[in-house]
Amino acid sequence: MPDYQAPLRDLRFVMDEMLDYPAHYSRLPGGEEATPDVVSAILEEGARFAREVLLPLNQSGDREGCLLEGGEVKAPKGFKQAYAQYVEGGWPGLAAEAEHGGQGLPASLGMALNEMICATNLAWGMYPGLSHGAADALRHHGTEAQKATYLTKLVEGTWTGTMCLTEPHCGTDLGLIKTRAVPTDDGAFDITGTKIFISAGEHDLAENIVHLVLAKLPDAPAGSKGISLFVVPKFLPDGDGNPGERNGVTCGSLEHKMGIHGNATCVMNFDAARGYLVGAPHKGLACMFTMMNAARIGVGIQGLGLTEASFQNALAYARDRLQMRALAGAKAPEKPADPIIVHPDVRRMLLTQKAFAEGGRMLVLYTAQMIDLVEHGVDAAEKERAETLLGLLTPVVKAFLTEVGFEATNEGVQVFGGHGFIQEWGMEQLVRDARITRLYEGTTGIQALDLLGRKVLMSQGETLKVFTKEIHQFCRAEEGNAELAEFVRPLAKLNQEWGELTMGVGMKAMADREEVGAASVDYLMYSGYVTLAYLFARAARQARAALAEGGDEAAFYRAKLDTARFYYQRLLPRTRAHKLSIEAGAESLMAISAEDFGLGFEN
Amino acid sequence: MPDYQAPLRDLRFVMDEMLDYPAHYSRLPGGEEATPDVVSAILEEGARFAREVLLPLNQSGDREGCLLEGGEVKAPKGFKQAYAQYVEGGWPGLAAEAEHGGQGLPASLGMALNEMICATNLAWGMYPGLSHGAADALRHHGTEAQKATYLTKLVEGTWTGTMCLTEPHCGTDLGLIKTRAVPTDDGAFDITGTKIFISAGEHDLAENIVHLVLAKLPDAPAGSKGISLFVVPKFLPDGDGNPGERNGVTCGSLEHKMGIHGNATCVMNFDAARGYLVGAPHKGLACMFTMMNAARIGVGIQGLGLTEASFQNALAYARDRLQMRALAGAKAPEKPADPIIVHPDVRRMLLTQKAFAEGGRMLVLYTAQMIDLVEHGVDAAEKERAETLLGLLTPVVKAFLTEVGFEATNEGVQVFGGHGFIQEWGMEQLVRDARITRLYEGTTGIQALDLLGRKVLMSQGETLKVFTKEIHQFCRAEEGNAELAEFVRPLAKLNQEWGELTMGVGMKAMADREEVGAASVDYLMYSGYVTLAYLFARAARQARAALAEGGDEAAFYRAKLDTARFYYQRLLPRTRAHKLSIEAGAESLMAISAEDFGLGFEN
Repeated sequence: MPDYQAPLRDLRFVMDEMLDYPAHYSRLPGGEEATPDVVSAILEEGARFAREVLLPLNQSGDREGCLLEGGEVKAPKGFKQAYAQYVEGGWPGLAAEAEHGGQGLPASLGMALNEMICATNLAWGMYPGLSHGAADALRHHGTEAQKATYLTKLVEGTWTGTMCLTEPHCGTDLGLIKTRAVPTDDGAFDITGTKIFISAGEHDLAENIVHLVLAKLPDAPAGSKGISLFVVPKFLPDGDGNPGERNGVTCGSLEHKMGIHGNATCVMNFDAARGYLVGAPHKGLACMFTMMNAARIGVGIQGLGLTEASFQNALAYARDRLQMRALAGAKAPEKPADPIIVHPDVRRMLLTQKAFAEGGRMLVLYTAQMIDLVEHGVDAAEKERAETLLGLLTPVVKAFLTEVGFEATNEGVQVFGGHGFIQEWGMEQLVRDARITRLYEGTTGIQALDLLGRKVLMSQGETLKVFTKEIHQFCRAEEGNAELAEFVRPLAKLNQEWGELTMGVGMKAMADREEVGAASVDYLMYSGYVTLAYLFARAARQARAALAEGGDEAAFYRAKLDTARFYYQRLLPRTRAHKLSIEAGAESLMAISAEDFGLGFEN
Repeated sequence: MPDYQAPLRDLRFVMDEMLDYPAHYSRLPGGEEATPDVVSAILEEGARFAREVLLPLNQSGDREGCLLEGGEVKAPKGFKQAYAQYVEGGWPGLAAEAEHGGQGLPASLGMALNEMICATNLAWGMYPGLSHGAADALRHHGTEAQKATYLTKLVEGTWTGTMCLTEPHCGTDLGLIKTRAVPTDDGAFDITGTKIFISAGEHDLAENIVHLVLAKLPDAPAGSKGISLFVVPKFLPDGDGNPGERNGVTCGSLEHKMGIHGNATCVMNFDAARGYLVGAPHKGLACMFTMMNAARIGVGIQGLGLTEASFQNALAYARDRLQMRALAGAKAPEKPADPIIVHPDVRRMLLTQKAFAEGGRMLVLYTAQMIDLVEHGVDAAEKERAETLLGLLTPVVKAFLTEVGFEATNEGVQVFGGHGFIQEWGMEQLVRDARITRLYEGTTGIQALDLLGRKVLMSQGETLKVFTKEIHQFCRAEEGNAELAEFVRPLAKLNQEWGELTMGVGMKAMADREEVGAASVDYLMYSGYVTLAYLFARAARQARAALAEGGDEAAFYRAKLDTARFYYQRLLPRTRAHKLSIEAGAESLMAISAEDFGLGFEN
């Protein structure tokens, strides 16, 4: 069975040393509670919960799957008990505001913990995971009564939440939804329609489920401007706020999926289910984005968690498995063969995983600081800047970390050779679980359009400049530092190129809008690689400083430098391919007609 | 359910137009039977068998899997009947020699058909698929009696074959095998040991199973020089050559796998099973490579087949699924949204699949001609040249086509969005099935070492030169052709660079052998991209010529040119990343110690 240890030392490096979280927290209102000692204690406790409670249920949950019987969904064995422990431990409300029953700790801390949950049991993690988005939507757009009724229960964890967006004929294009909301005499609404792909739509972990549902009012304008958001509980709360009458929302069936078998992905039928409007009529899309942005970051963290999990187990296997001798001569002559970690190509795979795990962690925790500032920052200018950076980086976190997460989990399988394909080892499950992360909450293609079209080009590149300026300042500050030249010089060049490349696409897009779509995914990947290059350069600076100071952790800092160097030498060259692909433009994509695509096989 | 139509038009383009198979066949002894009409008829009949018999069993076979009960393995419903039809139709012996009961048609024709089998039902295809390797080994190394007893049955298809190489503690490193062969009084051997990952090791499709088993004789030298090959039948043939007494070889268990569920992947226990030596004692590894090389090409074809299958279904979905409007304005204003094939990024994914399918097909059929020549060529120099090219390209066919096949099947899932993750659509099965192709018959890393270490560097680059010279001559011949300049110019540059890059690695490897392993996988991928570039340039020349001639298939040839252009503009730039990665060398891979790899999470 796969093992997992939370990367506490690396978390400490990124949070305490590189991004100065202690200072960051001390400046946040309420953040003063998050002292280094408290943070450490929480991370250690979370690590224990993930390893001891969630990890043992990961493979069994995958094998067992969920069961729909008589309208009720049973999660795999042990999931319900683990969730009870989770609620008992106060985890659901960790980063929620005190006024709603939460502990008021910063969101970023919840994100650090979330990596551990995703690494040990993604399918389980999605039961509480969707509650955050639902809570966010209610916190920002709900009435006081809705907050009192639903938000407190979500924070407490006794109820869980869902996001009901997709319908059979529409996912990306929510303007097409058909679910209807008809006003009732008492100010509520009857919701009728079918939603698909609803994660944790029905299950036995919590006493009630709070669905946040997109639907159209009778007088709705056509398209995406006519969508409203509703809260639709599984059980209608009674006078005391406890689950009362069963509402008209039921699970029609469970999807059969490639992975995350332990999570119930439901077709949900709304049959005149009673719902309550959240936010203004026809403004549901904006409310939905509140949920969605948090969810997108959450999915990026899933990519990160799975990468780390795969890395750790591939590393253990590579140290243990004896096969062939090192090309340069036996390394373990006393054994029948050398451990495969001596082979350069095995190391390439392990280092790819390691670099994406550590790079992803830096990206998540860098972005997490922006979330803290957006939510609780006191300085208006700082808050605005954080909001800009968060908007820019959200699609990168989501899509880049899931794309490389899929690659990394596949490298994990590859290190195991044929054994990687066998279920018992657990490595192929990580690939199957990772596969969904490139799809849900907006595919990589959709994230790429969001990044290049909405965030970068719509702001005439201003949004990007906020970030490239920060990178530029870093490079300027370190340009005389010979020890960092191997990182800072290529970074400075890339950073400038990023701006030029953006300008190039922008110019072409003025003549032909299709150029945006043609460049988008390569642009997103390019952006991800440059962003990680920036963060690895900062990590290298930190490591160099720590090495200069001395101390007994020199090996840790040298390994950090080695990883940064591997990233620069072996992964960053991929930007060359993406750059050329972007510059090639739309023509070769658009030339062939839809009919002619099939001429090789259609008669 | 996924659909499939064999790409007969594209096959005709590659075989008849581009590679002049009619002339190739007419020069082969026995090949004169393979007239264009006969070839067409066989391909059409094969297409029908694949589509009508195999395809309907693909999803059900995946869901059902195999069952081990009382030592007997039951393949999924319908597999046995389909196999009976296959034998009935004379397919197993299509490319086998007449003296062993085959039809004596060229091997290349079997490979063209094999693409269709792999595209429609990979798991089923592996029951007859392994027989080819076993038959090859017996044909080349077996005694006349062994051929009469076993080879004829394999050619007939009433018996199937296996390759029993891997053991729990060794796959790549066969020198470590523990299976023992003890001589018996009558000149046979008692084989004892455990083999794992044995595809089609036990099943109910055929009346007997012929295991080809690697084992060590009592006096065997240590390591890979002490391995011998044995034929071990499930049932010992009686006096009439029919299955007689049950031999001591049994299926201990079935592996639980990520994919190819319909194929029985067995743990095989040999308990003093009676076996017969094939070839000379201690020379089993050489015999094994006879099986293995054919099997490796076969796995490359699996990557190709899955790519084509995924492409066809993604194309159908992209034409059908309505979602969002084209960025440049509605293309289907009469519908609620445009079909997603209007979006440039969806086209990028489809064209990636199309280019890898068509490029892979060219590579397989180009290599297939070399196989024909090696087996039946009459001109000694031509034969030697074919052998060299085949040796060079075998690891490229195996590893490159499976790496890009995995990418392509994943693009297929991505085109489907969330639906791609749902089993009913069949797209995720193609990914799971494709995943094994990067692993078995030697992982990508092993193929890469074979290419760079054994084939290229061990020959001081001479092997590579045979191929780059052919490319050079093509480029020279076309350098004045302005219509082809978009292909020929970059190809000529790349071809030269390939040689230089090889020289660079070779120089470094003289100082440090680890440089070979450090460069190998990037070198293999680089080589694959350049090889496909050469073939696409030839395809473009052919298409240009056909367009100049006129005729009513202009759309087909224009689409071919469009695909070649897409390949050059959007996929070939990946060579830039691989080149830089190769040049970065071994240092960043070898710096970190095995212990320090884990410092971020180990305490």
